[in-house]
Parts: sequence; C-alpha cells; structure tokens
Amino acid sequence: RTRMDYSKNPLNKVIRGSKRAEYNRDEIYSIVDSHVICHVGYNFAGTPITIPTGYGRDKDTIYLHGSLKNRMMNAILENERVSITITHLDGLVLARSVFHHSVNYRSAILFGKPILVEEPKEKMRALELITENFIEGRWTEARQPNRKEFESTLVIAVKVQEASAKIRAEGVNDEKEDLKLDIWAGVVPLNVT
Amino acid sequence: RTRMDYSKNPLNKVIRGSKRAEYNRDEIYSIVDSHVICHVGYNFAGTPITIPTGYGRDKDTIYLHGSLKNRMMNAILENERVSITITHLDGLVLARSVFHHSVNYRSAILFGKPILVEEPKEKMRALELITENFIEGRWTEARQPNRKEFESTLVIAVKVQEASAKIRAEGVNDEKEDLKLDIWAGVVPLNVT
Repeated sequence: RTRMDYSKNPLNKVIRGSKRAEYNRDEIYSIVDSHVICHVGYNFAGTPITIPTGYGRDKDTIYLHGSLKNRMMNAILENERVSITITHLDGLVLARSVFHHSVNYRSAILFGKPILVEEPKEKMRALELITENFIEGRWTEARQPNRKEFESTLVIAVKVQEASAKIRAEGVNDEKEDLKLDIWAGVVPLNVT
Repeated sequence: RTRMDYSKNPLNKVIRGSKRAEYNRDEIYSIVDSHVICHVGYNFAGTPITIPTGYGRDKDTIYLHGSLKNRMMNAILENERVSITITHLDGLVLARSVFHHSVNYRSAILFGKPILVEEPKEKMRALELITENFIEGRWTEARQPNRKEFESTLVIAVKVQEASAKIRAEGVNDEKEDLKLDIWAGVVPLNVT
C-alpha cells in the first residue's frame, strides 16, 4: 500500500472475487472520470435510496448538483456518509454453464461525508467540473450560469474517505468438464455509442 | 390511479420534474425488463451502499443472486427494506446554457423487503429468470446448475411494495433569450451495442 492507495477496511474491502479488487487511487479515478452518471446511495426515512445523477471530480472530492428544492439533494446532506457508485458495463460473458455466466465491468464505489458548498468560487468551479465531466469543453462553449441560475442550484461536495473498485475484464471461465459441451461460449462486448 | 399503479407516498413520490414521473406498473416494468444490471441500495454498518448486480423478475418480485458467502448478499438480507434502481442512459442533452444541460434517461426505483429464497423450485425458477433476463433463451441453451452450484448460490426475493419511474425523452429546453446564441444545441443519442 502506497500513499496513492485507499486503505482496506470492513466497509470497502472486497471479499468475493478479491483478485478483481483495486484500491489504487489512479485506477479508481480512471473509472470515475470516464462516465457521466453515478449512483448515489443515501438514507431517506430509514430506507436506502439510490439515484442516478451527474457529477464532477476535483482530486479527492466528488461534486453533485441539483435544484435548491430537490428533496433528494437535501436528504443527501442529512447523511453522515453517502456512497457514490460508478459502473461501466463492458460485456456479457456467456459461459457453457449458467453458473459461470458473468459480466465484464469496471465499477468503483466511493464513500464520504456530504457537505453543502456555499463559497461562490468553489461552487462555480464545481459546476464547471460537473459540466466538463459531462462533455469536455462545454463550459467555455455554452452560456455559463447567470446569478439566478447559480443561486437556484445546490452543490454538494463529497470528500472521498474510502474507496474501492472491482474490475472483470476477461474471457469465459468454464469448468474443465464443460469445455466439450456443444454450447457457444464467449464474451459479447458492449459499447456505448 | 388504477389498480395497476403504485401509490404515491413520501418515499417514492417524485417531487422535482414530476411531469416526468410515472407510477404505472407496466411503464415501470418495461424499464426494468429491458436492462441487465440494477443497482441495489442497502445499509451496511449504518452506511448506505450501492452495488451493481444482475436480476430477474416474476410479476412483482425481483430476484437477486450471489455466492452463499457474499457479504453483500448477506448484508442485504439484514435490511427491512432495500431499493433497486434501474437506469437507462439514452442521450446527452446539450443546451445553449450550461444550466439546461441534461440527460435523456429512463430510470425506475423499486422498494421492497428482501427475503431469502429457500424453497428449491422457486429458487431454481429465480435462477432461470435471472439468466433469461441476462440473455433470452440462454437457460435452455446452457448447462443448468448442478446440485453443488445450486447449493452454493444464494437467492433473494424482493417483493415490490412501492415503485416509481422517471423518464426524460425530449429535446433541448433552452431559455427563449438564449435561442439566438451562436452555440450548437441538441441531443446526442446514446446506444448500448
């Protein structure tokens, strides 16, 4: 473990398929930086809720945004800790046995405390990062937020305290005795175009 | 509201963008049935966690599966209620103003109590549904689980008690005064191939 890695602890330690686990900061953030939506998990009235939303990143901080009146955004702020999951689905792994069917994927989960961003410079920078993560170069191309838009937007910073990733990027792992079966097996790659 | 709809309540009621909200059972399940991974939200040691996983559906029951030793699967069972989110990302909406950038998407969230499936017939049927949701026709094509594989698999049924969906499927909604700006705007459609 180098200083570039997240520590393993009961929360983020990958138990099953641990050979697919990653705690390296750069690996984790390469998964984060190549998607446009994340799934945020938080509790509302004691029930875990997961919503898809856009995001941006600055070092170890993930920024989320929404309307000032957004119930979800306000509920997120009431949590001591939330989790952010980013999942790329890369392929369907069709094995000869049903049991060994799988998917190729790259998934990262980040844990941190959600904090309301009030300082205007940081808030504007967060909106820029969210826009740039959505589509690079768009912040300077498009009309930037005016005062009314800026003030009606709520921005949350989640400072990442723990993180892990899980990656499957390989072929079919069938049982030896199944290899002779007359069943097509292989990976069907999936791409977002 | 017909008997085919889910009721609105504080948990599943869509507040923001409520004109995009759906409570119709068929609409919700058409979103569910056209994806291969869902995100399950539950609490582990007081922290909300979201994991991507496969699933299958039979009427109002969603089936999840994993290894018998899977910490996540066992943690899910300790929750009185979990949520299951299915998200299709259909397009990037590039507006003239940063503020009106959005995505076209179809997203469903289902709430229910997780129950361990122990009855062998229901468990085998659940594995069939999960396999068929992954890729149609595969259950009969591939080798079905043997006793050892069957017994090492844990299956969870989530009986859906509440649900809602949110859909955005439209063009750019710019402010009238921005329409004259010399900025390209439009929807970039996203497809999984």
